[in-house]
Amino acid sequence: MTHKLTPGSTIGILGGGQLGRMLALAAAQLGLQCHIFAPGSASPAFDVATYKTVADYADSDALKIFAQHVDVVTFEFENVPKSSLLKIAEYGKLTFPCVSALNIIQDRLLEKQYISGMGIPVAPFCNIETFEDLLQGVADIGVPAMLKTRRFGYDGKGQVKIDNQSTLAEAYGHTDQQPRILEAFVEYEKELSIIAVRGLDGSYKSYDTTENSHSQQILRQSHVPANISLNIKEQAIDITKKIAENMNYVGVIAVEFFYLGETAQQPLLVNEIAPRVHNSGHWTLDACLISQFENHIRAIAGWPLADTSRHSDAQMTNLIGEDVLDWTNIVEKENTKIHLYRKEKVKHGRKMGHVTQIFPKT
Amino acid sequence: MTHKLTPGSTIGILGGGQLGRMLALAAAQLGLQCHIFAPGSASPAFDVATYKTVADYADSDALKIFAQHVDVVTFEFENVPKSSLLKIAEYGKLTFPCVSALNIIQDRLLEKQYISGMGIPVAPFCNIETFEDLLQGVADIGVPAMLKTRRFGYDGKGQVKIDNQSTLAEAYGHTDQQPRILEAFVEYEKELSIIAVRGLDGSYKSYDTTENSHSQQILRQSHVPANISLNIKEQAIDITKKIAENMNYVGVIAVEFFYLGETAQQPLLVNEIAPRVHNSGHWTLDACLISQFENHIRAIAGWPLADTSRHSDAQMTNLIGEDVLDWTNIVEKENTKIHLYRKEKVKHGRKMGHVTQIFPKT
Repeated sequence: MTHKLTPGSTIGILGGGQLGRMLALAAAQLGLQCHIFAPGSASPAFDVATYKTVADYADSDALKIFAQHVDVVTFEFENVPKSSLLKIAEYGKLTFPCVSALNIIQDRLLEKQYISGMGIPVAPFCNIETFEDLLQGVADIGVPAMLKTRRFGYDGKGQVKIDNQSTLAEAYGHTDQQPRILEAFVEYEKELSIIAVRGLDGSYKSYDTTENSHSQQILRQSHVPANISLNIKEQAIDITKKIAENMNYVGVIAVEFFYLGETAQQPLLVNEIAPRVHNSGHWTLDACLISQFENHIRAIAGWPLADTSRHSDAQMTNLIGEDVLDWTNIVEKENTKIHLYRKEKVKHGRKMGHVTQIFPKT
Repeated sequence: MTHKLTPGSTIGILGGGQLGRMLALAAAQLGLQCHIFAPGSASPAFDVATYKTVADYADSDALKIFAQHVDVVTFEFENVPKSSLLKIAEYGKLTFPCVSALNIIQDRLLEKQYISGMGIPVAPFCNIETFEDLLQGVADIGVPAMLKTRRFGYDGKGQVKIDNQSTLAEAYGHTDQQPRILEAFVEYEKELSIIAVRGLDGSYKSYDTTENSHSQQILRQSHVPANISLNIKEQAIDITKKIAENMNYVGVIAVEFFYLGETAQQPLLVNEIAPRVHNSGHWTLDACLISQFENHIRAIAGWPLADTSRHSDAQMTNLIGEDVLDWTNIVEKENTKIHLYRKEKVKHGRKMGHVTQIFPKT
């Protein structure tokens, strides 16, 4: 029996972007209040939250007041400083997911070591600390390969593809002396993801496997059902469950997979984990009774997890940068729901909104 | 071609209850901001709105500032003072629905005269100004009959049932000298309602006919599909369309009907109109891609109306007063979505939340 937050309690959320905004909307439907902590005064999540703090994530005084005024804390982005979460813990408030899970997921090397240590297949990888490590890594793994910073990468930032020896010095310089990891470049058939949720009581539920497509390393489209066998779906769900249980994870977790085809020796490789609600789960808002956002709030509030089943097939398309200028046409479309995040400025590569189309379940 | 509010515009809402709250949530999904104007400092809608004004509806100064800071105005309750809307118009902002439609709907007598004047069947009624009118009315209409105040009634407030001559003086006294209407008491088979929406461009869409049940004159349950013939559904939708078009109505309109059975000479009587989103349309949040709340916001923002089709069958149950204390059990239920309004106190007869169950479409 876990402690349940009562309606009217306050969820603290670090981060004020669209994920925080959609978490706050889901919390509101459950009669819970939100307190958003974010450094930008025009953060989209502020619009729909009862309380807000505009402060830097390192601001101890602000974190203290925040911790005192909320009942539990979560975050909308994996690069939230661990020190902020530890401060919040000092002031007596729990954070879900736990900082120890975050610690692993924030670092690509620790993440890969952790996952492969569980016997779960990942692409070949090696730690890069010196240029000699890179030479050795390329010799071991071969090309093409991806050289990535271990921390703070998202949407393809901090990554460079290595095609042949001649670009090695440049690639090494490009990633700017930060701790790095070299990963084999995987020729996959599909990109898949699992959005799952684990409760405070250890219960686990997964949404249907999502099939994703990226463009310029930013998620472009997701659709369900994924065009893969039931066997592969079950494998992906089981792998995600194993990771979540091993981490004693609480909340929504997203695991991205490379699918190499039915005949591959290892059809599924884990690409990366996101310790939060995930863009590839936005379709759950419109094709499920209970969205990923509500299930995350339920989990961290100590409520029972709710159904993850879907009533419809769905396709979600991100509105990235200038895509959003087409909103006048999108709102004319049949069978289409637009979600706009109220970001102040259209910026190239910025996620401005998304669009979901639903279809009768096949 | 009508003017479309651009994303980031501000919707002004008079009233801060659960309907205002759910309108604000729908507006947020569209990237619109809300400014809630309500007299109570703990109004549920404040939680999810960017701006709030705590002031009396008669406060001219507050209305002026409000009008200057919003792009269009709507309201969540039919008893909003017309004078407030007229003030807002003086300060240059439009209100949807229009005050002239509201003027009729606020007054049961004008409403009944208006509807029957269009040739649409209603229960026999008469204007009651004196005790002699009541004697004459009872003689004309017969008993049982309902004596109702013409204005400010909701959820059965301001109504008294007349069973026989002996209670007439008491009934007359009970409704406290306000302008009144006497209506024949209808022995109906079912209560139905239509939630429809009319756009600024005159477009019209209706959700599926809802079947409702009341308890102590408060809506208890709604379900779709209603167990009636397609012919009756179409009649109800057509009547609603006729009313909305006749009023040049903009926004969501709800029309409640008494259904007297297939064999009745007039199977459908209009009971009353609500010039707003309606409790019997809450199922649209979970059984449709686009809810009544979003379609209302779209209409008043000058956006095209969206699909009103439903992907699922649904049953909505209100959580009234102490019902909400059962929330810990409700959140355990499969296939069930709880909506809580974050009202500060549980009060007998107060709508605290609602629960929707969805089922595959039959």
